[in-house]
Amino acid sequence: MSAFETRRDMFNLPEGITYLDGNSLGPLPKHAVDQTRRTMTDQWGEMLIMGWNKADWMALPGRLGDRIGRLIGAPVDSTVVGDTLSIKVYQAVASALELRPGRKRVLSDNGNFPTDLYMAKGLIDSLGQGHDLKVVDPEAVEDAIDESVAVVMLTHVDYRTGRLHDMAAITRKAHEAGALMIWDLAHSAGALPVDLAACNADFAVGCTYKYLNGGPGAPAFIYVRPDLIDQVRPALSGWLGHAAPFAFDLDYRPGEGISRMRVGTPPVLQMAVLDAALDAFDGVDMADIRARSIELSEQFIAEVEASCKQVELASPRDPHARGSQVSFRFEEGYAAMQALIARGVIGDFRAPDIMRFGFCPLYNTGEDVSRAAAVLSEIIASREWDQPQFKTRKAVT
Amino acid sequence: MSAFETRRDMFNLPEGITYLDGNSLGPLPKHAVDQTRRTMTDQWGEMLIMGWNKADWMALPGRLGDRIGRLIGAPVDSTVVGDTLSIKVYQAVASALELRPGRKRVLSDNGNFPTDLYMAKGLIDSLGQGHDLKVVDPEAVEDAIDESVAVVMLTHVDYRTGRLHDMAAITRKAHEAGALMIWDLAHSAGALPVDLAACNADFAVGCTYKYLNGGPGAPAFIYVRPDLIDQVRPALSGWLGHAAPFAFDLDYRPGEGISRMRVGTPPVLQMAVLDAALDAFDGVDMADIRARSIELSEQFIAEVEASCKQVELASPRDPHARGSQVSFRFEEGYAAMQALIARGVIGDFRAPDIMRFGFCPLYNTGEDVSRAAAVLSEIIASREWDQPQFKTRKAVT
Repeated sequence: MSAFETRRDMFNLPEGITYLDGNSLGPLPKHAVDQTRRTMTDQWGEMLIMGWNKADWMALPGRLGDRIGRLIGAPVDSTVVGDTLSIKVYQAVASALELRPGRKRVLSDNGNFPTDLYMAKGLIDSLGQGHDLKVVDPEAVEDAIDESVAVVMLTHVDYRTGRLHDMAAITRKAHEAGALMIWDLAHSAGALPVDLAACNADFAVGCTYKYLNGGPGAPAFIYVRPDLIDQVRPALSGWLGHAAPFAFDLDYRPGEGISRMRVGTPPVLQMAVLDAALDAFDGVDMADIRARSIELSEQFIAEVEASCKQVELASPRDPHARGSQVSFRFEEGYAAMQALIARGVIGDFRAPDIMRFGFCPLYNTGEDVSRAAAVLSEIIASREWDQPQFKTRKAVT
Repeated sequence: MSAFETRRDMFNLPEGITYLDGNSLGPLPKHAVDQTRRTMTDQWGEMLIMGWNKADWMALPGRLGDRIGRLIGAPVDSTVVGDTLSIKVYQAVASALELRPGRKRVLSDNGNFPTDLYMAKGLIDSLGQGHDLKVVDPEAVEDAIDESVAVVMLTHVDYRTGRLHDMAAITRKAHEAGALMIWDLAHSAGALPVDLAACNADFAVGCTYKYLNGGPGAPAFIYVRPDLIDQVRPALSGWLGHAAPFAFDLDYRPGEGISRMRVGTPPVLQMAVLDAALDAFDGVDMADIRARSIELSEQFIAEVEASCKQVELASPRDPHARGSQVSFRFEEGYAAMQALIARGVIGDFRAPDIMRFGFCPLYNTGEDVSRAAAVLSEIIASREWDQPQFKTRKAVT
């Protein structure tokens, strides 16, 4: 067993539920409830507009950025929180394209989360400057990097299979070809060690409602390499990225360093929740989280494969080649996942046939893993999934 | 006295505070505290990822959009909530420019809130297609509308003086010249009647933390004219504006109608607060709010001018030509506002010399007005503002 000690008591985990979907939405950190209430009553309620000064709400995007920065190997003052991940992707791609004006290609892969591709394509269509978005298989990315590429944009951990890209190797390859590198850390931040500074990534973005437990619709983050930020012209040049937002100048002047990647008024209440959620990482070494995550996922694969022959591992078998999730393919995966959920084992489904299970050592235990593996095997063996109520697709899957 | 009945008891108004800054940040609606707690504990806490279906979080952007739509004359299904006002401005301008490909001018005025100008300029600089942003005096807007203009972008109520643009007349003028019209309703929504449908506006945007009391960093909204929306290509093409977000297609297809103006995952907790805050408008007729707002502002002007000769009215004297705020110019306005705040009368200051007071009939009373006018006059008459502690500029003013 690894040295990692669970912090399960910090989270609200409903009785009878085995939660292996923290890679979609992390559970509620119990103390976030009171902390948010106090932000509402003691800050907004009592300080009113003066909260911006007295409670220093304006500092939240940078302060939370630094708290996340510690988990992803980002130096202080290089990460800022706000907006949604889609918006942060747009900022990164727009900035990168302007930094490589002679090149017209954005390179990505078909394992990227679709919104990253949509945002890049939407930007390219707006620009009308002859850029293209080239999307290849994940295994073909390195070979597709050449001197036509302005920017390589990849998600570190594949949201369906958990396959992990080699951040250092691909970033190096991109730089050798003169391209810039954007990493989406949606399934990495809080899940496994990331060292942005060591691998010299140019941009990184991510969301905070998965492994960081910031709650539904929690804001996103963006990192820009410190020695690059002064060259970045913010395409989304909002007033809170201005050098002096409250001077109300008619002309935009980008703020110092990473502050220019701020756009509009920060979502203070959603940030209060995230601030509380990040407490769960205080004093935690991401290497210990990773070691424990690998134990849990190895246990899950072994137990499922020992008792259930009908499913096929969709994740890399090498634990060092996958993130903190395990996916199995099963033709009736949608119905099987609904049957699992009906029994209180929560994972999720991704079309066409992927059953996804996330492992979060902060609160998941070996007993969670054993129960999930046992229930999955029972449901498949007994064809418990083969009932009409499990086959009706819901809006959000 | 108008027929409007105060709903002051719904709001947390600290003892001893006279709050005339709801045009910057509305006060806390008391029941929002419990409603937000329940969203955290009963929805996020107990439903976990299933909240997206069981609590219908995915419907929040449209449902809240319709609640706001009722206050601004927008038909059902034409308004959606999300992101920040800066982002919504960007969406509107980007869409408008693509709808007028042969024209290169964005026309605005120097009474617009700076972030609107920054976002438009940032977009234009990204496009590199020879667009320009022409910024004229508010009085010169109508004459500057000609067939070179692709889009006219204005804030309805001037954030400094409260001067009101004639929405119907300017929109008509823009349309006659073949231009599109974007209205920023930041200081209008919830403050005075707006009829987007009647004036045939093409786009409208606004924030919800001012007169709508949605809390610090509450999300913004965007309206698109229903017969125009099908032609709009979203520049910010995020997955939640996709026709089928959970199909995870690699290619973007815009969603039905206004749903395409959604971008990323909605900030559910911040939206829960806004949902509660909008209850204060249930059964309220905006015409009654407006009548009472005019009474309060007329009383304020009369009382201040009767007792204080050193300040100069910066707002239009005709109540029908101004929004729900009154501004006075005073050379030492910054220090005087700090002295007022020290005495518990909260307005705010806008450079270079504007003292701003907002009137919100939902909770402001005639006693608030009298107290504010009396304290302002005392502070000026006694030069109480002339102390060093009132002259030190704070980060947020």
